[in-house]
Formats: sequence, C-alpha cells, structure tokens
Amino acid sequence: MKNKWIYFFDEVAEVERYVGGTWDGVRALLGGKGANLAEMTRIGLPVPPGFIVTTEACNAYQNAGGQFPGDLWQQEQEAIKRLEAQTGKKFGDPAKPLLVSCRSGAEFSMPGMMDTVLNIGLNDEVAEGLAVLTGDERFAYDSYRRLIQMFGSVVMGIDDEPFEKVIAETRNEAGVKSDADLEADHWKAVTREFGKIFKAKAGLDFPQDPIEQIKLATEAVFKSWNGRRAIDYRNAAGIPHDLGTAVNIMTMVFGNMGDTSGTGVAFTRDPSTGENVIFGDYLTNAQGEDVVAGIRNTKKIDEMAEDFPDAYAQFVDICRKLENHYHDMQDMEFTIERKKLWILQTRDGKRTAMAATKIAVDMVEEGLITRERALMRVSPDQVDTLLHPQFDPGAKKVASAEGKLLAKGVNASPGAAVGMTALDADLAQKWGNSGKDVIMVRPFTKPDDVHGMLAARGILTSEGGATSHAAVVARQFGMPCIVGASNVAIDLEKRRLTANGIVVKEGDWISIDGGTGEAFVGQIPTIAPKLEEQTSLLTMLSWADEVRRLQVWANADYPEDAARARSFGAQGIGLCRTEHMFFQEERLPIVQRMILAGNEEEREKALNELLPFQRSDFEGLFEAMDGLPVIIRLIDPPLHEFMPNHREVLEQVIEKRVKGETEGLAELESLLTAIEGMHESNPMMGMRGVRLSIMMPGIVKMQVRAIFEAACNVARRGGVVKPEVMIPLAGHVNELKAIQPQLESTAKAVMEEKGVEIEYKFGTMIEIPRAAVTAGEIAGVAQFFSFGTNDLTQMTFGYSRDDAESRFLLEYVTRGILPQNPFQTIDQDGVGELMKMAVAGGRAARPDLEVGICGEHGGDPASIEFCHLIGQDYVSCSPFRVPIARLAAAQAALKEKGVTAK
Amino acid sequence: MKNKWIYFFDEVAEVERYVGGTWDGVRALLGGKGANLAEMTRIGLPVPPGFIVTTEACNAYQNAGGQFPGDLWQQEQEAIKRLEAQTGKKFGDPAKPLLVSCRSGAEFSMPGMMDTVLNIGLNDEVAEGLAVLTGDERFAYDSYRRLIQMFGSVVMGIDDEPFEKVIAETRNEAGVKSDADLEADHWKAVTREFGKIFKAKAGLDFPQDPIEQIKLATEAVFKSWNGRRAIDYRNAAGIPHDLGTAVNIMTMVFGNMGDTSGTGVAFTRDPSTGENVIFGDYLTNAQGEDVVAGIRNTKKIDEMAEDFPDAYAQFVDICRKLENHYHDMQDMEFTIERKKLWILQTRDGKRTAMAATKIAVDMVEEGLITRERALMRVSPDQVDTLLHPQFDPGAKKVASAEGKLLAKGVNASPGAAVGMTALDADLAQKWGNSGKDVIMVRPFTKPDDVHGMLAARGILTSEGGATSHAAVVARQFGMPCIVGASNVAIDLEKRRLTANGIVVKEGDWISIDGGTGEAFVGQIPTIAPKLEEQTSLLTMLSWADEVRRLQVWANADYPEDAARARSFGAQGIGLCRTEHMFFQEERLPIVQRMILAGNEEEREKALNELLPFQRSDFEGLFEAMDGLPVIIRLIDPPLHEFMPNHREVLEQVIEKRVKGETEGLAELESLLTAIEGMHESNPMMGMRGVRLSIMMPGIVKMQVRAIFEAACNVARRGGVVKPEVMIPLAGHVNELKAIQPQLESTAKAVMEEKGVEIEYKFGTMIEIPRAAVTAGEIAGVAQFFSFGTNDLTQMTFGYSRDDAESRFLLEYVTRGILPQNPFQTIDQDGVGELMKMAVAGGRAARPDLEVGICGEHGGDPASIEFCHLIGQDYVSCSPFRVPIARLAAAQAALKEKGVTAK
Repeated sequence: MKNKWIYFFDEVAEVERYVGGTWDGVRALLGGKGANLAEMTRIGLPVPPGFIVTTEACNAYQNAGGQFPGDLWQQEQEAIKRLEAQTGKKFGDPAKPLLVSCRSGAEFSMPGMMDTVLNIGLNDEVAEGLAVLTGDERFAYDSYRRLIQMFGSVVMGIDDEPFEKVIAETRNEAGVKSDADLEADHWKAVTREFGKIFKAKAGLDFPQDPIEQIKLATEAVFKSWNGRRAIDYRNAAGIPHDLGTAVNIMTMVFGNMGDTSGTGVAFTRDPSTGENVIFGDYLTNAQGEDVVAGIRNTKKIDEMAEDFPDAYAQFVDICRKLENHYHDMQDMEFTIERKKLWILQTRDGKRTAMAATKIAVDMVEEGLITRERALMRVSPDQVDTLLHPQFDPGAKKVASAEGKLLAKGVNASPGAAVGMTALDADLAQKWGNSGKDVIMVRPFTKPDDVHGMLAARGILTSEGGATSHAAVVARQFGMPCIVGASNVAIDLEKRRLTANGIVVKEGDWISIDGGTGEAFVGQIPTIAPKLEEQTSLLTMLSWADEVRRLQVWANADYPEDAARARSFGAQGIGLCRTEHMFFQEERLPIVQRMILAGNEEEREKALNELLPFQRSDFEGLFEAMDGLPVIIRLIDPPLHEFMPNHREVLEQVIEKRVKGETEGLAELESLLTAIEGMHESNPMMGMRGVRLSIMMPGIVKMQVRAIFEAACNVARRGGVVKPEVMIPLAGHVNELKAIQPQLESTAKAVMEEKGVEIEYKFGTMIEIPRAAVTAGEIAGVAQFFSFGTNDLTQMTFGYSRDDAESRFLLEYVTRGILPQNPFQTIDQDGVGELMKMAVAGGRAARPDLEVGICGEHGGDPASIEFCHLIGQDYVSCSPFRVPIARLAAAQAALKEKGVTAK
Repeated sequence: MKNKWIYFFDEVAEVERYVGGTWDGVRALLGGKGANLAEMTRIGLPVPPGFIVTTEACNAYQNAGGQFPGDLWQQEQEAIKRLEAQTGKKFGDPAKPLLVSCRSGAEFSMPGMMDTVLNIGLNDEVAEGLAVLTGDERFAYDSYRRLIQMFGSVVMGIDDEPFEKVIAETRNEAGVKSDADLEADHWKAVTREFGKIFKAKAGLDFPQDPIEQIKLATEAVFKSWNGRRAIDYRNAAGIPHDLGTAVNIMTMVFGNMGDTSGTGVAFTRDPSTGENVIFGDYLTNAQGEDVVAGIRNTKKIDEMAEDFPDAYAQFVDICRKLENHYHDMQDMEFTIERKKLWILQTRDGKRTAMAATKIAVDMVEEGLITRERALMRVSPDQVDTLLHPQFDPGAKKVASAEGKLLAKGVNASPGAAVGMTALDADLAQKWGNSGKDVIMVRPFTKPDDVHGMLAARGILTSEGGATSHAAVVARQFGMPCIVGASNVAIDLEKRRLTANGIVVKEGDWISIDGGTGEAFVGQIPTIAPKLEEQTSLLTMLSWADEVRRLQVWANADYPEDAARARSFGAQGIGLCRTEHMFFQEERLPIVQRMILAGNEEEREKALNELLPFQRSDFEGLFEAMDGLPVIIRLIDPPLHEFMPNHREVLEQVIEKRVKGETEGLAELESLLTAIEGMHESNPMMGMRGVRLSIMMPGIVKMQVRAIFEAACNVARRGGVVKPEVMIPLAGHVNELKAIQPQLESTAKAVMEEKGVEIEYKFGTMIEIPRAAVTAGEIAGVAQFFSFGTNDLTQMTFGYSRDDAESRFLLEYVTRGILPQNPFQTIDQDGVGELMKMAVAGGRAARPDLEVGICGEHGGDPASIEFCHLIGQDYVSCSPFRVPIARLAAAQAALKEKGVTAK
C-alpha cells in the first residue's frame, strides 16, 4: 500500500478513517497545530487553504537517514500544484503570487523546534510583483528581507547577528531610531545586503525557486525534531522520541493591506480571571508579529466592533463555535485581509489558576462539560497557588533582570513572602512580635527555633532538604519556605549573608518564593488570595468530594491547626506529633529535667508535671475534631533533640577552661557529658520511636494516660472522640508486642477510673523497610497502618533527609538520574513497591486494616494518585494542602475510571 | 482404642511399631533418657528393670487440667505390680523392699525441669528392714533422710534451707565438721526432724505408702513441664510447648554395698582431646552422687581393671557396643552392685572442639559413620575456637570468682588476648612495636587508628556494634575484639578507665575474650592453636570442599591478607576495600590534599600521585590470587572520614581565639570550615559510594585506571587476572548508567594502551533496600551482585550500625524482642526477604548473574546456610573465617539433602 504523507486541511475525515476515528490519533498524525487547522476547516471556519506533511513522513525521513523517503517529495509537489489550483495563485508568478507560511507542529507543543517561516514564495521577481500588486513597495521588500533572514536563520542556521548589524547600520545612515521609519528603498538595500550575507554564510545564493524554498523549509522542520534542545526537552518532559513532527504549509493572508485589513490574537475568555468575555488585542493594517512584538500600541479586541463590525460579529460567533466544538477556552490568531476574516490558528488557551477554576465551573453550568471533566481541568498545583500569596509575575521578572536573584534552593513550601532578614530565632520572634515582617534565615532549623519560625513570614535555610525540619514546619503552617539554598553563606558573627555576589545585612529586606525556590534581595509586591472568597474553587472541591474514594485527613499538632484543617475539609487527623508540644517554652525545661533525671523517682515527677499539658492539648484536639478520628503519634524523636546545642555548650566549656574560670564550669561539664552521652552517629537510625518507648516506657505511658484522660473528659462533656494511638518506627512485630499491651492496660485503667468507654485503636507507622516487608506479622498486632513515607524513603534509598538534597539529590534530579525528588513524590518503583507489599500483607492478615499515609507525600498529587491505586483509606497532609489533596484524590478516582480533561 | 501410657524398658519394639519405626519417634514418646534405657535393654546391656510413663501421658495430664487422665493411674499401678514380679521385690516389704528412682526425661535435655528423686519406696518400716538387709544402719537412714529431703524439695516444693539447718545443727552438736563423720544415730535423728519439717511445710505426713510416693513423684514431673523456668527455657531455645516430658521409674541398684560395689561416670573417648580411650572416674563402695560431688577422691577409670577385672572387661565391651550402636561418643553412668555391672544412663557425650573434630574424623576412618555425617558433627563455631587462642577455662572461672570481670560487651571478633592497656593508637603502636603486648582501649576507633590496632593484640571499645569499624577491622585481622562495652568509662585526661568499680590505669594488664565479650583485669593464661597442626580439621575441611556448592571467597585489602586467605582455602577475593589503602601514613596527606583541592587541576595532580600506590597494591593482590577472581570495590566512605577529627580542630580554634593567639589561626579556621562544610547529620546515608563517584568522578576514574594498569602489568608477566570492579551503594539503575560507561571507557583505554585484553566484570553491591526491590533493572547494567548485608541490615531495620547495639539492640536480643543480633546473623524474614527478591529479580534479568555476599554475615554459619538456600554463588568473609565458612557451606548443602548429625 502506498503511504499517504500529506493531507489538506479539508481532508480531516480521511485522516480520521486512517487513524481509527480518535482525536488523539488525528493529533498524533497531523500534530496539534495541523489537527486544529483541519478541524476548523471541517466546521466551516475561514481558514486559509493549506496542507500538512504528517508526523509519519517526518519519522520516515529520520529512518531514511535524513532523506525524503519514497515519493514524499513527489506528493508534496503535487500538493503544491493542488494548492495553486485551490487558491488560483501560483508560486513564482509575479502577477498572482502564492505565498505560504511553513511551521512545525508536533503532537505536544515543544520549545526547541523550528519556528515559523513566513512569506515563502518571495524572490527577486515576485517581490517586485508584490510591490505592484499591493502598491506598497516598502511592504514588499520588508517582507522579502524578513523571508531571507528567517530562512537564513531558521532553515540554514545562520546567526541573526550579521543581519541585525545591517539593519542597525541602515538606521544610522538614515539617521532614524526605529525600523518603522525606514523607507522602501532602505528595505530594498537591506534585502540586497541580506542576500549577500546569506550567500557568504550558507555557501549558496538565496534560493529563488519557491519550490526549492519549500523543500528546504520542510527538511528544516524535520531536522529540528532531532535538534539538541528538542531532545533535551523531550527527555526532561518524558515525551517519546519517536513521535515526529508535522509540517504545516498554509497560504499567507495579509493584515497589512491598508485600513480594511488587520490582525490580532484573542482568547475566548479572560485568561487571567476566567470571566466569560472575549479577551485580546488587535491592530489595523498590521501583520501578526507586530501585535506580539509590541512595536505599536495595540487596541482592545472590543474596539474591533467599531472598526470592523461584520468581521467582529463573525469573530464572536466563531469564538462561540470553537468553544462549543472544543469544550475549552481557545487562544486564536486571526487576520482580516481587506475586510475578510481569516482564522490562522487555535489552541487551548493558557490561563491562571483562578481562570482555570472559574472556566471549568462555568462550563459545567453552561452545559459544555460534565462535572467530572471539569475536575480534570484544574491541576492540584494550580489550587495550591490559589491558597498562597504569590509574587506579581511582572515584578519578579524585573527583579531577576536587575540581578536581584540571591539563590535558588529547594522549593519546600509554596507561597511568596517578603520580610527583613533575621539570622536567629530569638530576633525573628522579637521583630515578628513587634509587628515587623521577618524572613528567618538560618543554616538549618531545629525544634527550638520554632518560636522564631512562627513569628516569621517565611524561612530560608542554606542546608537541608524537602523534608528537613524547616520544610516540614513551614508546610505545616502554610508558610513560604526555601531550604538547601547552598550558595547562601551565612556569617553569624558579622550578622550578614552573602549569595550570588550580593551582601545582605541582617535587617535588609529579602523576598522568597517558596513555590519556585527563588530568593531575591529587596521587596517584590505580592498578591494574596483567600479560600472563602473563591467560590468557583469551593464549588469544584465540593464536586471533588463527591467522586473521590480516598479520604483526606490532616497532620495537625495543635487545636488551632485541627480547626483550620477541618475548615479546609479534613475528615480526620492523620498525625498529631506529640513531641511538638514538648518544645513549648514552659515545657522544655520540664522535658529536660525528665531526660536528665538521675533516678526513676525524679523522672516520674517530671512526667507527672508534663501530663496536664499534654492532656489539655489533646482535649482541644478532640473537641476540634468532634466525631472524627484523631491519630496521635507517641514520642518519636531522639531525646537529644530536646537538649541544648552541643556545640554551644562545648564552646562555653572550652572557653571557661582556657580562661581558668571555675564558676559554673562543673555544671556545664556535666551537662556536656550528658549531651555527649546521648550523641549518636546517625540519629535518624537511632534511639527514637518505639525503641525509645521500649527502653524508657515512662514517657509513652504518660502520653497514653493523657490521651485517654482527655478523651474521657471530652466524652463526658458529650463529645464524640475517636482516638487512635500510633506507635512510630516499628520494624519488628515483637517491638509492638513488647510495648502495646502495657499501653492498652494504661488506656483501660484510665477508662475504668473515669467510668467512660471510648472506641479506640492502636496502630503503627510503616516507615522502616522491614515493617513493609513483614507487614503481615505486624498487622497481627496493629489495627492500623500509617505510611511514614519520609522515613520510608530515607531508609529505602539510604538518603539522609537532612543532607541528601543539598549534597547530591537535586543534582541527581537535574541530571535525570532520578525522575523526581523522592522526598516530594513517592518513588513508585522502589518505595511504592514496598508500600504495595505492606498493604497486601497487612490486609491479608487483617482485612479491615485501616491504611493511610502521613508523610509529606500525603499532600503531593502524584503520590496521592498512587495511594488511591494501592487501596489506601486516606491520605493525611498539612492543613493548607487539604484542598489540593481533595482535588487530587478526585482526579485519581476519575483517572482510574478513564475520565480525561478533554 | 485404649491408650497405652506406659512402656517397660524391654518394650522398645512395641514402641517402634506404635510411632512408626523412627528413632526420633521413639525419643519423642519416651524422652531421650527413657529411649536410651529402652535401647540399651534391647541390645542386651545390663540395665536395671523399669518403665517409662510416656510424653503422651504427660500431655494428656496437662489437657485434663492437671489430673491423671483415663486409666493412667491404673496402668501405672499395674506396671508397679509387673516390676515387683520382674525383680522379685515388693514395695513396702521390709524383707525384700523394692526401691526405685524417678526422673523426668523430655525429648530434648532441658534445665528447669524436675530432677531425680532417688530411693522411692523407703518409709519408716522399710528403712529399718534395709538396715537389717544391708547390715548398714547408717546407709539406710542416710538414704531415707535423702528421700524425705529430695521428695520435700522436688515434689512438694519445700525450701532446702530448714533441712540444711537441721544437718548443720546436728554437726555442731556432734562436734564434727563433715557429714561423712555423722553416725547412724545422727541420721536416724535427722530423719525424724526431716519428717517434722515435711509435715509443717507440706501440711501432711511424709507419705508412708510407696505407691502414693510414686503417684506424687509422677505428678511432680508432669507439673515441672510447665514450671516458670522450663517455659522460659523453651521460649528462649525455640522448643515447642506441646512436647511434654516422660517419667522414668527405674529399680535402684546400690554401689555402696561394700568393697564389691562401686559407681562411676565415663566417656567412651577422651572428651577433651578426642583420643580413642575410655575416660572417666569411679569410686568403690559409693553412690553416684558421691562421684559427682567430689567429696572423696575418685579413681581413674582404668584402675577399675584391677579392682573389678570382670566388670571392667564387660564395661569396655559395652563401650564398644554403645558406640557401634549410636555411632557417637557416649557419656555413661554405671554402678557395680556386688560385682554386677549395671548401666544406669547413656547419652551423647559433650566434647571440646578439638575432640569433636578428631572423633568425627576417626569414626569415618573406623567405618562407623560416613564423611557426610562426620561433617555435620562439628559446628562452625567449634572450628572458630580451633583457630583463635582461648583462655584456659579454669583460669577464667577463677578470675570471675575473684571479681576481676570488668565488662561484658559485644563479642565482635573471637579469641583471647592479654596485654597492657593503651588508650590511643599512637601509644599502642609505640608499645606494640617495642615488643610489648598491648590491648588498645578506645571509646571507638576510626580508620586513622588502624596503625595502633595492627600493633595491638586485641581491641576493646566502649561504643559501637558488631559491624563498627573496630569490629570489622579486628575480624579482618583475626584479632580478638570487644565493642560496645558501655560500662567502661574511659578518662583520656587521667589516662585510665573505670569499669565495674575497678580502676585500670594505662599500662595495666587486661585480658579480653572476644568470643564471649568478657574483659578482665589482669593476665589470664591462654592456649594457642595452629591450623596447619590440626590434621583432623584439615581432613574435615577437605571433605567439606567436596560437598559444598557455595564457593568461599575472602575479604582482603592487602596482598598479605589475600595470601593468607588463599592459604585458608579462599577461592577468590569478594571485597577489596580500596579506601583502606588511602589511610596509610604516606598517602593520607595526598588524599587530604585531593579533597581540599581548590580546583580541578590541583585535584588531578593529587590523584595522579595516588595512582602508583593503588596500582602497586592491586598488582600484589592480583599476584597473590593468580587465576582467581578479585572484586575491587571503588571508594565507599564519605570523604570526611579522611579528614582530621572535627572536635580536635574545633577545640584548637576556640582555644586560640580565647587566648588571642593569631599564629596559624587562619589556616586552622579554614580547615575547620572545610571539615564543617563536609559535615553530614547521618553520614551512613550520605555522600558516599556511587553518589560520591557521580559527584566527583575523578577518584574512581583514577582507581579504575590503577586496577587495569595493574591487571595488564601482571598479565604481561604471565599471570591470570580476573578483576571485577564493584560500584558500591547503588539504589537506582540510573546511578550505574551515569558512571559505569565512563569507567568502562577508562578500562578499555588502559587495555589498549597496554596492548593486553583482560577478562573483567563491572558490578554493584546490593546494600540499599531499593536496590534489592529494583534488582531486575539493576541487573540490566550490573554483571554481578554482592550483598552488602551490613548496610542492607542497617537500612532495612533503620538501625545505625554505629549506635544501635549499645543503645538498644543488645537489650532487644536479651529480652527476646529480636531472636538474634541482625548484624551478626541475617534476619531472614526481613533482610533475607529482600535478598530473595534481589536474587530472583536479578537472575530473571540476567540468568548468569554472579551473586555473592561480602557483608560481615558472609562468615556467619546460619547466614551462610541462607545464602546457600537462596542460590548465591559464593560467600566472602574475613580470611580467618574462611575455614568456618567452608564447613558451614558444606553443612548447608548436606542439610538441604537431609543429612543429619545422627
């Protein structure tokens, strides 16, 4: 069978037969641009005639080693003849010249591929003829010189620089500042010079034969598919290399044929707000690039109603038709040539998050799309931007251009923040409490920095990764945060930081974008949205709740967190980190006393002092989550995290010794000995979680007592409490067997004392690879699993969460060694495989096992989809990500059903 | 069908029919003791008549809630009647009294169960009769009072203390020091007092009815099966709780009926050396317990030839018969009653490692057992003790008794060592090189301590676990080592250590037992064996080599190591740690220069200086292993391990600052900054292995160049080299893809330069859980896998190798939370499951994938068996463990075939 390599715009029906009727098939064969041109032609829109060389032709060309395969070139020549017949014009005929544009167009829009070449068909003779035909010699030669330059640069790979130099010299000689002031003769001369440059650089005369021009342009498009940048882009975006690109050849129409002509670009709706009004710019007597280049002041699209009433009415009608056809907002290019409207291109319009949401919801109400489809139209990342202040994009560009970029680190928690630099937590708190906007900048943060972090607008650290302390706390509080900005050198003595050659003194203003990881010196203006005002988003989330199977819970340590999470739609607390309560100012000294206790009695005493604090925290949590489950994790971190900084104590001791100061030395020395006695080489794999509970059961017994006293108190006041006690870091079922019965006894004892029966569960985190592998055994004891994917990722990869990102992990991602940062998105092949084993093993042993996730991945859309697919019951994430997770969970369910955005 | 609960010693044929003919079945029903008594009876040995109440009866008793089930008691009464008929004696008949012993006897010998009760059948009347019959009133009443005391304590649970008090008072009143000096009347009086105590404590008169005595004793044996200590023991030893115990009732015979009687214990061969001579002690006119208690000086067994020539000849004959029957060395109890020899018990004799080996080999040569069975008779741990110096067991007991035990830590590397305490590596080296015996004692060791370790006889650390640096290096060099002796407080300023209340000054002698983890103050004498002198062991190892499928390779970093490994039978090098070469004195400064290099040029220069060192090391290795494969691992540790100690530099800086000293401060500060820049929170999960190679490829390129230059040089000199280059710590196949092709290019370039073609492989370690999970992908690139089970265990459990053991892991093992230390024996359920996945996945992708293990588990017998079962090709261990591994590999293969030690 003979291959058909070329289709005219009006042959879409034939294409559909060939590819089997699907729109995806049509796009794959004709490319996105060509498919839309053919589609518009079919529904009767005024598209200039033209044809498409298919992606199959491109692939055949590559496979033939960069030669036109079979009869491709013959088919293209025949197509040219047919185009001439269709238009009544002729290539190379000065009297009625046919001019065409040539553009690449792959299935997916791709930077790095060949741009447009306009005005193909011009040569010395035709240019003269065009001047006569249009009565505009300047236009003719301006067009011709553009062809030579575009052809030279795009097709022959000639540098733009010598061309630009000629124009600059011509301006100088003419004594004008703008190209617009150059006359026809200037352009004629420029055209001649361009011809010479072309010959010198390309080694041949500018091809005078329009057919030769088309052949070379077609080949250039094919070749651009395998250009360095295109390959890199496909690698990065995961686009296969065997798709190929199509070539679109379209008859030129001219918007610059006087005042009855014009050209513009328009969206069917406002791409910024989503409002249902046509939005765009146009110019009379101009060509498309003039609108884009901004050389002349454009007019608003609605002014067209006055300038071209008929064309405008037709255009409004076309907008409606296109939306009805594509069921999506369109971005179009059009030209009016002597009052006749031509549509040159349409595609789905890019839009802001706010517009995406509003358009999707509006289109459901307009009956254009289903709710399910609408839910697929907004990405969870877009929802994220709706919840956090953002920098004004223009202002950010300006700041970058002015060299104010300080650093690009790990985008740990999204949103924009502006504040004065504070280099320690105490100062951050002092300034923050006095009403100043503060960005706290530290090498890294520790739990006892939290007071400063909470008083700041944002956090910047030079060390740490996406699950470092700073990152986790920041996300928890929806606070913008950049971590691991390793080029930021912080000098705590001189109270300043240096980055990218800029010195920022403490107190100087900086601006951080937690969504991109960029930090700037100075103040960049921000835009701040509110959830309750975003009615379209709220509507969409309510639809999401109807379709998702996965529940969305939140990680919350304090009653206020829990209340916020619930207002965002959380259906439970998946993780309350009890130890965060230990770090509060009035409590930390008691905790330290408990740790340093010389005997059991002293320890018991300190624990008894902590009990009322914990109990009151838990009461608040239970009240906020009335009726919903609350998972409380028993103490997890190693005890040394609660102790003063080793280095500081060491420095004090050495200083005192060297100076011979004895006052207080002995106490400091004994503190130092205690801290050093607690030192671990690899604390992440050390004495924490259930290990600590087994070796020192007093703490967790106190915690369980506090949980159940609080639960009973709230229940007696009429609340419905569903406490679930979570034991962290189990790796062997015997660890649970060693501690859980003791804790259940405590729980029962409390309920008996209080005379209240509470529904409760005991369960564990799955965060040690061994726990995943032996999940069946563990589920024999645990009533629920919660994946701690931060630690599970850490152990499965052997990547220290504290160090890996800044040392090598980001570089791995940049170089494509890892497809993504596994601390942000679950590594499905490795970590995910263990999670699957755990769900399967756990449910085999205990069919009603409750399975969730409380690691940072619980708020990541791709990870949420994975959690859905492996059959988890819920995901738990920071309160600010609950809306994102609700949408992502819905999309996961819809995707599984086969629902797409189109 | 009616249950038969009781079998006489002569009914073994009936038992066999019932249990289906197997010896295991007989043992299970009759218990070990009973089965042997029945067996001896069958082969015609003189065993006093008696019967066995079966383990089934015991289980039925437990199931009946502690009641004699069905007609059990009736059957036992009938058995008593039959015993009376058989012996012609009668229970309770003073004229011809029948006396019996009652003993428990389960399938496996078990402490914590009921001991023997002798002399059952005595009462007031019978005692008097016995006095008349034997003409020895003292004997009669001594026997009777013993019955009351044993019965009281064992059957009724009465404390021994009041009984002992009566005897002590009687001695006082009689004015004698020893029980032996008490007369018949004394014992008569004691018997009366014992009766009173019995009544007071047990609440009933001592039962006068012998039948009642038997009933109570039988029940006491049954009950002891569920005693606390027996249950604990079964839990610890993994013995099922439903086996039950049998009860052995045997007619008493007396060795104390004058000079024609005697009693003794004997082994059929020397249990200490294995020599084929009867070995034992006996006494004339004595009862069994006298021999054991050591009250009188015993005679050597061969003196019996003179005292009792007939009985002795019969005994020698019986020894031969028993060995022929059991095919193993026996440990027997016998009594001669009025010249007649009775055998009261036989069992397999306990023996030393040396004896075990010699006996097994001799028995093969004597045609008693097959080679395969002989191989199952010696445990790999026993081979281990044959290769290391050991403390004289008696001397160790004395030292313990004298309170010289300092500490009990992790038994990191076996063997005994005695030396003067040196608290740092430099001093250890200085003293060691001057010919002194040194034990180096440190909190922990680092690679730059190795010079001191090598000069020491043994190592003791207060921190670290079984795979800590000290432990690994010590095992590598077969040097006794204890780590994690956490009660040892080392005071480096006062140059002393304190442990268990003992102060040991630097230079004081200590003795360490690396096999048990015990450290003592002072010098304990040692016994030092040599492999080449142990002909039985060498014979056995040569047999092992014939049956094992698993190859045994060795971990060796230096040519001398490799040569030693080969002499011990290694078939390849499974791990050469190239970085160990970096720590040598002349090289470390170059390495540090390389690390601190300010630019690529400086780094390149330092690397070029290292190249010749590495090349010459590799040449030596290849020469030593001529013809065998050598796996060389590229650099693994993080670079900061090569830098000076952070704390020391920090202290120097602070000191200089405080003192205001500026000289050298700037350099120290910049060194400090560099070291701190390299700091990682969890270095075990940090920038090391392939991560380091990807970020800084210069080092590994140099190493690969050195490997192939060395290989080519050796090959050109006629050697056969098989280098295998191992890339450590891969977790994602893309890591290998990123670095391996570069290294292969280097290899090819070298071979081209040298004009030599070498057979080589590139492979990776499987030590990251993710690598095991995605082994199929990884095997697409790697040609071999080597399990790094130290790291794999670390990551799978999330246990820091540096910290876990001393913090909680040993406690976990002690409390049974973990069945064993997973750093010593592979955790089959968790880590092992990942290993299985890796082998399956890897071989599916590459059927000829070479799979081995180079972690510390490669020398552990249980782990070696696991490696055999999952189909590995080899295990690699430290040179000193190669013989152990050869035997363990053979046993694994035999066990799989069903070969047992019996």
